Amino acid sequence: MKRGLDAIFKPDSIAVVGASTNPEKLGYQILENIINAGFKGTVYPLNPKAKDILGLSCVNDPDDLPEGIDLAVVIIPAGVVPATLDRLGEKGVRSAIVITGGFAEAGDEGERLQKQLAEIAEKREMRVIGPNCQGVNYAYHNLCASWPLIRLRGDMAIISQSGTVGAALIDWASEERIGFSAFVSMGNRADVDEAELIEYFSEDPSTKVITLYIEGVKSPEQFQRSLQNCGKPVVIFKAGRTARGKIAAESHTKSLAGRDEIYNALFKKYGVVRALDIEELYDYSKALAYLPEPKGNRMLIVTSSGGAAIIAIDAAEELGFLVDPIKPAVAEEISKVIPPHCITVNPIDLTGDADAAMFKRVMDMAEKDYDIVMPIFGDPVPGAVDIVSADKCHLVAYLGGADVEREERVKMGERKIAVFPTPERAVKAASVYLKLGRIPETRESLPHGEEKAAGNMLTPVDAFALLERYGIAVSPYFRVTKHDDVRRYGDALGYPVVLKVNSSEVIHKSDEGGIVLNIHSADDALRAFDELCNRFDSRGVSYDGLLVARQMEPGTEVMLGVTRDEQFGHALAFGLGGIFVEVLKDVTFRMLPLSKEGVIDMIGDLRGRRVLEGVRGRPPADVDAIAELGERLSRLIEENPRISELDLNPVAVYEKGLVVLDARVIL
Amino acid sequence: MKRGLDAIFKPDSIAVVGASTNPEKLGYQILENIINAGFKGTVYPLNPKAKDILGLSCVNDPDDLPEGIDLAVVIIPAGVVPATLDRLGEKGVRSAIVITGGFAEAGDEGERLQKQLAEIAEKREMRVIGPNCQGVNYAYHNLCASWPLIRLRGDMAIISQSGTVGAALIDWASEERIGFSAFVSMGNRADVDEAELIEYFSEDPSTKVITLYIEGVKSPEQFQRSLQNCGKPVVIFKAGRTARGKIAAESHTKSLAGRDEIYNALFKKYGVVRALDIEELYDYSKALAYLPEPKGNRMLIVTSSGGAAIIAIDAAEELGFLVDPIKPAVAEEISKVIPPHCITVNPIDLTGDADAAMFKRVMDMAEKDYDIVMPIFGDPVPGAVDIVSADKCHLVAYLGGADVEREERVKMGERKIAVFPTPERAVKAASVYLKLGRIPETRESLPHGEEKAAGNMLTPVDAFALLERYGIAVSPYFRVTKHDDVRRYGDALGYPVVLKVNSSEVIHKSDEGGIVLNIHSADDALRAFDELCNRFDSRGVSYDGLLVARQMEPGTEVMLGVTRDEQFGHALAFGLGGIFVEVLKDVTFRMLPLSKEGVIDMIGDLRGRRVLEGVRGRPPADVDAIAELGERLSRLIEENPRISELDLNPVAVYEKGLVVLDARVIL
Repeated sequence: MKRGLDAIFKPDSIAVVGASTNPEKLGYQILENIINAGFKGTVYPLNPKAKDILGLSCVNDPDDLPEGIDLAVVIIPAGVVPATLDRLGEKGVRSAIVITGGFAEAGDEGERLQKQLAEIAEKREMRVIGPNCQGVNYAYHNLCASWPLIRLRGDMAIISQSGTVGAALIDWASEERIGFSAFVSMGNRADVDEAELIEYFSEDPSTKVITLYIEGVKSPEQFQRSLQNCGKPVVIFKAGRTARGKIAAESHTKSLAGRDEIYNALFKKYGVVRALDIEELYDYSKALAYLPEPKGNRMLIVTSSGGAAIIAIDAAEELGFLVDPIKPAVAEEISKVIPPHCITVNPIDLTGDADAAMFKRVMDMAEKDYDIVMPIFGDPVPGAVDIVSADKCHLVAYLGGADVEREERVKMGERKIAVFPTPERAVKAASVYLKLGRIPETRESLPHGEEKAAGNMLTPVDAFALLERYGIAVSPYFRVTKHDDVRRYGDALGYPVVLKVNSSEVIHKSDEGGIVLNIHSADDALRAFDELCNRFDSRGVSYDGLLVARQMEPGTEVMLGVTRDEQFGHALAFGLGGIFVEVLKDVTFRMLPLSKEGVIDMIGDLRGRRVLEGVRGRPPADVDAIAELGERLSRLIEENPRISELDLNPVAVYEKGLVVLDARVIL
Repeated sequence: MKRGLDAIFKPDSIAVVGASTNPEKLGYQILENIINAGFKGTVYPLNPKAKDILGLSCVNDPDDLPEGIDLAVVIIPAGVVPATLDRLGEKGVRSAIVITGGFAEAGDEGERLQKQLAEIAEKREMRVIGPNCQGVNYAYHNLCASWPLIRLRGDMAIISQSGTVGAALIDWASEERIGFSAFVSMGNRADVDEAELIEYFSEDPSTKVITLYIEGVKSPEQFQRSLQNCGKPVVIFKAGRTARGKIAAESHTKSLAGRDEIYNALFKKYGVVRALDIEELYDYSKALAYLPEPKGNRMLIVTSSGGAAIIAIDAAEELGFLVDPIKPAVAEEISKVIPPHCITVNPIDLTGDADAAMFKRVMDMAEKDYDIVMPIFGDPVPGAVDIVSADKCHLVAYLGGADVEREERVKMGERKIAVFPTPERAVKAASVYLKLGRIPETRESLPHGEEKAAGNMLTPVDAFALLERYGIAVSPYFRVTKHDDVRRYGDALGYPVVLKVNSSEVIHKSDEGGIVLNIHSADDALRAFDELCNRFDSRGVSYDGLLVARQMEPGTEVMLGVTRDEQFGHALAFGLGGIFVEVLKDVTFRMLPLSKEGVIDMIGDLRGRRVLEGVRGRPPADVDAIAELGERLSRLIEENPRISELDLNPVAVYEKGLVVLDARVIL
């Protein structure tokens, strides 16, 4: 006789309550699966009339069952479940899996029945899974009290509030030959819940990873305690993220779906890996179960497909891996053993000529400098299975290999090697180890676009003049070369004013001290004039006087830019000013030419677009004026195609109209 | 004799140049595939010595070929390719697919060879695919001049710069029985490129969708023209997004990979659907080819799996679909024909008891009010294929059905019905139609969390006092009830000051006119005092005097908040101030209690975290002070668990230290 949940997962005897003679019925199919899964204990089909089913003699009444059966699998109408459980409990049945639906999920009467069921379970000290569930599957005890019949042993315990999601996962695992340790469809959780199951499988020697699909949590305290105490990785896909999804989840499970941000916080606290869809849930679990933990984030890619390797690199870079070139000395050694047209950087591209032996040679030579080695078999590569190892951090992607691929994947699965169908899914799955935060990330500094040489930059005055020719409003300005000018034009503009050095050599005016803001009087203006002149004279920078401009009211800041692509010509960049561009890279691009409608369409791309509607007490910004500016800029570029770069940043947008505060134009 | 690219895709005669007698060699395998694909024209294996291969008599010398063959498939060493092409051209061969590698991708000598090849092609007016490619596959002409042998006819033309990626796509399409019209592995594009292929397949009557994997574009003008003129949907996965990915792409293809933001702009301009990974490329193409365009975004979900439906709703909401409840009258009709425990909202959850007939009944009754009907077969549902239609916008997801599922999927594929393996992938695939922007989106207004009743809100003075007890710095303040107080404390604090109504009934002080900022003198302060008192007296709002506080220097703004979850207790929210929280929802959560380290860890979650390092000339913010504040707040909550909500917003963080400017505490 088994104690606690062991009676459910490792029973010595099972009664199938509601066993059926009709092969179309679950009462038949589940009995069949229990038998065909190779269960080693005794099975008692319980059926009021039948003599035998599937070769087993039937028991016609619960009273005729022997004492102390471990597990009852219950598939009878909901109305008679509580009374039957009571009689089973009387006979000392230790546990039950109630498949039958029609309980709490089905209205008031069902809720009443479920309450009865729970009370009886407590009274009789029976542990119950369900009701309204798809059963239980524990591969290491040859137990398949569920459907379909799947029983391949592996390392993932799959616990699911949805029978379908769980069944899909074990089906995938079975197709890939990596298997699972357990599948528990929790159903309505009248008794056993996710917390207790996490606890149970954290102690189960056959389980390496605990994989959960949940829509809500039954006992918050126990759930948290189970996560706290769990020494194994836990991956959870919590559905009901959105408003409507939450409503559906609560109606489905008759329990609180909870707030999504709280689940994020919880999962962070207990080091739970959060998956955002079924495939992520599967892939993360698979990596944790079958891909050995890497020591760091340095990744080597060895490939027979150049394209697939590029795809892998994009994913790796975005997810925090480092795909550094191999050391020159190693590259030289490698180039001696592979065809001359192969590329030996990282990826090492063996091209379509690669065979398994060549993969192995190269991986052996290069892998010592990396934490993760990713072979991409991007063709039919027979024998690939023999050169990857379950003991090393070999991240395998296999694609484009048709039947050879299918055979190799099965063989790899049988050797407990995780194989992924695309490079992206492989890299994302491996990134689960970075999410756990236990791996030190080496960070490199990639050169991020060199600074454009000043080359043919227009002076600020020329840039403003160019804009004005296209009817684009700039802050009122004058060029000044002496004190008299400053005094006269300062007065004419009205204070405050700004002063800028008028040079085609000073690219970043603020950083290089070429601009003075907030000048409130003629005296201050003269001082600033002298200061700027002295500064640039002493640096030997050539400049054509200074620009004095009215300091405008701060509106809503936006930036518009034009960039010229070597292949495709000019594109317009549009973003909100300041941090939106600098910190958040919240910028969108369109090819030129562009009409007003095109510019308005761009606004919709911005994460921060609501700023233009007016937030924090600010008035809304004149979107029409922005569109007009974009269209004028488009014409300016069409008529001045030599411009390679143009930046209007910032542009102050008001409730009515806008003004360009600073401009940079490079030919 | 065929003209232009027709010679490649619809040849009457093919010479396999480099046909081999060795089954291990491509020269044998490709010949075999050409034969086994059922090519109807004449095939000439060209081999200098062999007599026959695979039952076909060999031609030993190009001179012995008949005049005017349409297509040569070339698999001979790179060095002899140009001369051989020249001789083939002399014999009037119209086109060639050069499989051989070792050209531009393999260094200077290869580049020279490729240039020769291109010149000969031009001179001989031969159209050439490749070199260095995986061949061509045109299912509607029974042409498989590539490997592996795949030939199932369908509606997607797959054009790929990577042989592997293309092969993976046609393999998937073939496994799913939906097939493809063409597969072109472009290789080095010495002659034919993506632009010309887009043009060709835009005219091809068997192609509904053009699917491309590219790493760069050969002729920008022609590429753009081809997109401009293409009347069919085009889906493109452009790899080389990241810095390292771009380097790898350029080394792989020896051509410019271009800037990612420019590709975004281009694709927007021409209405190209951009896919970001291989599975997206496949799924979007599949939906465009096999899912009829919906008229709008209203989605009905009919499911046998409650869980899978919740997952679908989350995805649908996030991607712009509307999963509105079904009309009550329709719901009532439906509830008459399905078991009583089924839920008839939207999703209509038929539960595990559902069979195909029940799906059909319900879909027929409800689908008239929706644009997309999504049946989710979340179990083995035999006969599912018979109740979905290729002519209606039926978005099918099938999972958890094991062998029954596999059979049904194949049958659906054969009837040109797209089936997706998870609800998320189905919904995302369908969202391709929203991306195209041709579908009107109906928008609803969901109730987004009601306003908390003021209930037990502390007054601003009490809230500040509470914070001070935990050593949290607030702006220096006093409670004032009369003019004398205002004068005295205003002077004591030093101007400018702010005045706030000290009430537990005013939740949003700014919106309700309960705060006056920028008070620069005692006179102004007295005026503000009167104004506030009059305002709230006249509204009958009770308040306990006003709060006068020093107006602090504007530091870097952050906000900290505490929220209490019904199930899991208190969590801390942390975000940057202003637009970051209000517009960008850039907020992160952690469960309480929390140490300083925990708070610092939160910072890493924020998209805008760089703001704290100091941007736009601002000094860096005192991160340690923020951590300290978080920890003190954590203790405050531990000792005052009755608090259900607490907001410190804004908090001004300086280079050294910080000050809470406003606080709201609800018990």
